[in-house]
Amino acid sequence: MQIGMIGLGRMGSNMVRRLLQKDQECVVYGSHPDVVKDLQELGAVGADSLENFVSRLTKPRAIWLMVPAAVVDQELAKLTPLLDSGDIVIDGGNSYYRDDIRRSAELKSSGIHHVDVGTSGGVFGLKRGYCLMIGGKTSVVRHLSPIFAGLAPGAGDVPVTPGRDSHSSPGRTAEQGYLHCGAHGAGHFVKMVHNGIEYGIMAAYAEGLNILHNANVGTRSGDIDAETTPLRNPEYYQYTLDLPEIAEVWRRGSVIGSWLLDLTAAALQDDPALAKYEGRVSDSGEGRWTILAAIDEAVPAPVLSAALFERFSSRGDADFASKILSAMRNEFGGHLERSAPKTGA
Amino acid sequence: MQIGMIGLGRMGSNMVRRLLQKDQECVVYGSHPDVVKDLQELGAVGADSLENFVSRLTKPRAIWLMVPAAVVDQELAKLTPLLDSGDIVIDGGNSYYRDDIRRSAELKSSGIHHVDVGTSGGVFGLKRGYCLMIGGKTSVVRHLSPIFAGLAPGAGDVPVTPGRDSHSSPGRTAEQGYLHCGAHGAGHFVKMVHNGIEYGIMAAYAEGLNILHNANVGTRSGDIDAETTPLRNPEYYQYTLDLPEIAEVWRRGSVIGSWLLDLTAAALQDDPALAKYEGRVSDSGEGRWTILAAIDEAVPAPVLSAALFERFSSRGDADFASKILSAMRNEFGGHLERSAPKTGA
Amino acid sequence: MQIGMIGLGRMGSNMVRRLLQKDQECVVYGSHPDVVKDLQELGAVGADSLENFVSRLTKPRAIWLMVPAAVVDQELAKLTPLLDSGDIVIDGGNSYYRDDIRRSAELKSSGIHHVDVGTSGGVFGLKRGYCLMIGGKTSVVRHLSPIFAGLAPGAGDVPVTPGRDSHSSPGRTAEQGYLHCGAHGAGHFVKMVHNGIEYGIMAAYAEGLNILHNANVGTRSGDIDAETTPLRNPEYYQYTLDLPEIAEVWRRGSVIGSWLLDLTAAALQDDPALAKYEGRVSDSGEGRWTILAAIDEAVPAPVLSAALFERFSSRGDADFASKILSAMRNEFGGHLERSAPKTGA
Amino acid sequence: MQIGMIGLGRMGSNMVRRLLQKDQECVVYGSHPDVVKDLQELGAVGADSLENFVSRLTKPRAIWLMVPAAVVDQELAKLTPLLDSGDIVIDGGNSYYRDDIRRSAELKSSGIHHVDVGTSGGVFGLKRGYCLMIGGKTSVVRHLSPIFAGLAPGAGDVPVTPGRDSHSSPGRTAEQGYLHCGAHGAGHFVKMVHNGIEYGIMAAYAEGLNILHNANVGTRSGDIDAETTPLRNPEYYQYTLDLPEIAEVWRRGSVIGSWLLDLTAAALQDDPALAKYEGRVSDSGEGRWTILAAIDEAVPAPVLSAALFERFSSRGDADFASKILSAMRNEFGGHLERSAPKTGA
Repeated sequence: MQIGMIGLGRMGSNMVRRLLQKDQECVVYGSHPDVVKDLQELGAVGADSLENFVSRLTKPRAIWLMVPAAVVDQELAKLTPLLDSGDIVIDGGNSYYRDDIRRSAELKSSGIHHVDVGTSGGVFGLKRGYCLMIGGKTSVVRHLSPIFAGLAPGAGDVPVTPGRDSHSSPGRTAEQGYLHCGAHGAGHFVKMVHNGIEYGIMAAYAEGLNILHNANVGTRSGDIDAETTPLRNPEYYQYTLDLPEIAEVWRRGSVIGSWLLDLTAAALQDDPALAKYEGRVSDSGEGRWTILAAIDEAVPAPVLSAALFERFSSRGDADFASKILSAMRNEFGGHLERSAPKTGA
Repeated sequence: MQIGMIGLGRMGSNMVRRLLQKDQECVVYGSHPDVVKDLQELGAVGADSLENFVSRLTKPRAIWLMVPAAVVDQELAKLTPLLDSGDIVIDGGNSYYRDDIRRSAELKSSGIHHVDVGTSGGVFGLKRGYCLMIGGKTSVVRHLSPIFAGLAPGAGDVPVTPGRDSHSSPGRTAEQGYLHCGAHGAGHFVKMVHNGIEYGIMAAYAEGLNILHNANVGTRSGDIDAETTPLRNPEYYQYTLDLPEIAEVWRRGSVIGSWLLDLTAAALQDDPALAKYEGRVSDSGEGRWTILAAIDEAVPAPVLSAALFERFSSRGDADFASKILSAMRNEFGGHLERSAPKTGA
Repeated sequence: MQIGMIGLGRMGSNMVRRLLQKDQECVVYGSHPDVVKDLQELGAVGADSLENFVSRLTKPRAIWLMVPAAVVDQELAKLTPLLDSGDIVIDGGNSYYRDDIRRSAELKSSGIHHVDVGTSGGVFGLKRGYCLMIGGKTSVVRHLSPIFAGLAPGAGDVPVTPGRDSHSSPGRTAEQGYLHCGAHGAGHFVKMVHNGIEYGIMAAYAEGLNILHNANVGTRSGDIDAETTPLRNPEYYQYTLDLPEIAEVWRRGSVIGSWLLDLTAAALQDDPALAKYEGRVSDSGEGRWTILAAIDEAVPAPVLSAALFERFSSRGDADFASKILSAMRNEFGGHLERSAPKTGA
Repeated sequence: MQIGMIGLGRMGSNMVRRLLQKDQECVVYGSHPDVVKDLQELGAVGADSLENFVSRLTKPRAIWLMVPAAVVDQELAKLTPLLDSGDIVIDGGNSYYRDDIRRSAELKSSGIHHVDVGTSGGVFGLKRGYCLMIGGKTSVVRHLSPIFAGLAPGAGDVPVTPGRDSHSSPGRTAEQGYLHCGAHGAGHFVKMVHNGIEYGIMAAYAEGLNILHNANVGTRSGDIDAETTPLRNPEYYQYTLDLPEIAEVWRRGSVIGSWLLDLTAAALQDDPALAKYEGRVSDSGEGRWTILAAIDEAVPAPVLSAALFERFSSRGDADFASKILSAMRNEFGGHLERSAPKTGA
């Protein structure tokens, strides 16, 4: 099947590569000519303008946008006038699902179909395949099946979930790694929550490893002053643990085995102290939107929100709140803030 | 190598089975004669008394205790008088690591070695192998290598972590699924934090799936009264999502793939509404101890603690706190508590 | 000064009473004629229709809306056509500040001024006065000063904050209990965060009192099974504490003295077991919006969000998440859910 | 009544001053001779050695220890041999209640009584009085009533809680600001939870004020890159709020009025930007122990624990966890950590 790809960054260009490997026809357009050229050498059709790109696509056109969420509207504004009724625009980036609902309605007036696809897989997707969460009209989503199947991992050697008949029941594509989740926005809604979960899982590992990292706190010479709580039982915190080995052993047979753990093991293997990082953790929207959804639904999400807030804190955004706490302590107890840096953490 | 196993419950008996499959010699003792008999038929040597059990073991004896944490001390009180200097007692259950430190010191006076082993793998361990986190004296741990190697999953087909030379460097056993973590208690300390992480990961999935489960909140007729916050944008919550399919699709290629997700997919496949559960979640100690360690170390663990507290709440332990909140609201605002059950969640 | 009041519920009618006591002129309109009659007897001018209400007000009219946030737009739709350029509409309810921004822009086209006032004080406001947080155009807010001053508590006998010159510096009205916080929406924004803080404070007391309430957990006969974590040191939890007395003693001299504590003491005095409450805690919007603001600002709010989520949980909204946890535990460990009710909490 | 005071730091010396004002007889002993001399001038009897101190006390001696929790045991070791059966030792510091239980049992063998007193009031206690939470034997506690009554605030002008008969019912001393909470340790247990609540309340104010502080986030020029989530609606975050005035207005009539708010208003009045603080917040034990108690009791405490963890984070103790998160993000998504400092928070 033919697909046009706009946006040839890390994600978009790898998706083209994977589709080419799966014998799908790709027309590509992006701002970096050398990437276009690279993909052409792999079999893609390159375009040097948006007009040229559109003209090379067979109607009904299927166009995949793989651009930052912040520029989707401006890309659509340029693209839409060039399209015809029946054409399909697929937003595979990290758009907010509410924008999908709006855009699908806007495009509908021109007869253009909108499909939203939450895409997980990161830089490994080229090799492992991408997990695709899809929202849109059923007939349109079905029409795009060859593309989704090409991008998705396929059943692979993942064990069959007990109770599922086979890997290939018609219409049940989850085992292949892609799923039509529901109406417009449903794909990005599911992807949003997926990322919210991801934040929580990542934080669980990070907090736990930090506890292991500090299991030697009893060996450190403690500050003895009124502003520091003494450790009552230093004898229980005498372990200097080898985190790369621990992450490695957990990869086999343990309940907490996961792909994120595999990646953590790799990062710790490479740099056990993680010295090249400052510990300022970005967040990219979905984690925030997940909490907004939880609040709208009145569903408790203390773990997912704590994970999000830890990222904010890591960037210094709690500083003013902390100053207020120190100021209060000074007011009521005359407690002076201890400014000396703490060692060892 | 010969090992004696005390405690033939779900975990202990499966571990014997696995060791027998790996051609290790097992002497077994437990309170259920039929289990002993079953294991005898698989090649184990059965014992009908503790004395008999001890007498059938070759010195230096290696005895694995697989009993509830609450009874380890009484088991040791019966067992220790029958042992000789040089014998080894392995606690493979869920003991608190501080008890390991105490017990290893107590046993040392009789020349008996203590080894603590955190064992992860659950009911699947027989087939998948057990991930073993070990604490104790190096020479003793090395002596037990054949047992650990038999129980552990081995390298299997888990991808090699980039940067690790090979699967079999001497002394680096993590790739085989077992690890000598450190001195007495280190095994259970690492297992404790492992379980703390497990609580966090489980909660992340549970909260996220609950948000997906309630993505249709906009379709429900809302209560319109002063005590209920209206949903501002019901049009954004019109999705009735198929959780079993979503859990399934995430198993392939997504960033949040994990063994716990595999199990979640299986549970949802079996019973999408999870109607057979009340939602009263037990906790078994390690999650609590993880938070105690975090506090002693002054390491933030908001995600892990939130996960623990959600379990407490699920069992009604926040009820009095909630009554205080309702009482306060009544006091300052004359707000009457709404007692009618909420639908749809 | 003359003020028209629409909405004569608990809050609105008490505010009229207070203004009448302060010799302000009140024209009142509401759906319950008997309340209108009561207020008339206290000196208010009653109106039996919106038209009649408007006609009795002197231009430029000052009209205070004290109605549920959900009906403000429909009230404005009825009221606005009757007003003239230069008139002032004050929204004293719990509107979302974003609606203030929208409404002030809409009204501006008709030359009508909009002022948003966050009003704190609850049922005690009649006697104690109302704390007012105000947003809008400076000249309009100043014009309304007599009304604000009448509703607000005044300086009273609250100790002067060190460093503040006096209680009556011109333009600095905070000591009188009302404050022009900023442009349109600023009043409700500050009130929103005020309520978010309120949720956090309330939860802090509630959690703490729950811990005191359960300080006798060591006296209860514990369940002894694999699904229940035994209490390691029951001897440390033998206290049966008298919560009403404790709340009372904290009211004098302690760091945690507050008005909410006064109310808590009253509630506990009245009903130490709070048996008349189920513990289903409502929330009324501001707590949620506070977290949305925190997330938009990337400011960590783990305490405020935990307080909100506890309310959701109290209403059963975590149940599906809890079922997922029980299902996972059953899958990996064969753990059966314990359904028996727990005693004593 | 006569009392001996050991420990003449900020708290101890002020307590002596207050007792002298209440015409109680004070014998004092401390490491700083000039403080002893100051108190002598106010009417105290000074001692220059522990022996001298003990000899000046009438049997049965009542000795109040006001020393850091970490040195109580060594003080008792020196003091106890000098005492006689029937003497009373009062620990008014911040001891862990479990130590009270142990010490009271140890002292009992010598016939010495132990009383634990949680003391709240901070540097303002001299003037406002101290809120006292007391644990010990009833007869001994009653014997000390004059001292407790002298230190406590008394009924003062705090409004009577509705339903309480009068301020002076015999044995009901809570209205006077002191309370016999229960057996040994009960005083410090209640004080511990009191401080846990204090942490939660403080955090609620701090988080809320931080949200207000950042209400102008829409006015800042945002970073436009893939690692920064854009603010969707900057028009809603255009408020530059005057925090000292807001804290001030909340002091009158609002639901969140409290003594901690009074102090916050004072701190903000003095230094609106709190520029003299770094935001490294100490914690002094009780907050930690409160969470340990909650966990032992299986009582959820998400707000109190979040408040504690925020303090840990403020001191950099989450840094390694944050590095792990950045490392994971780099692994799966090739996300580079943004190191540039964020402005404006």
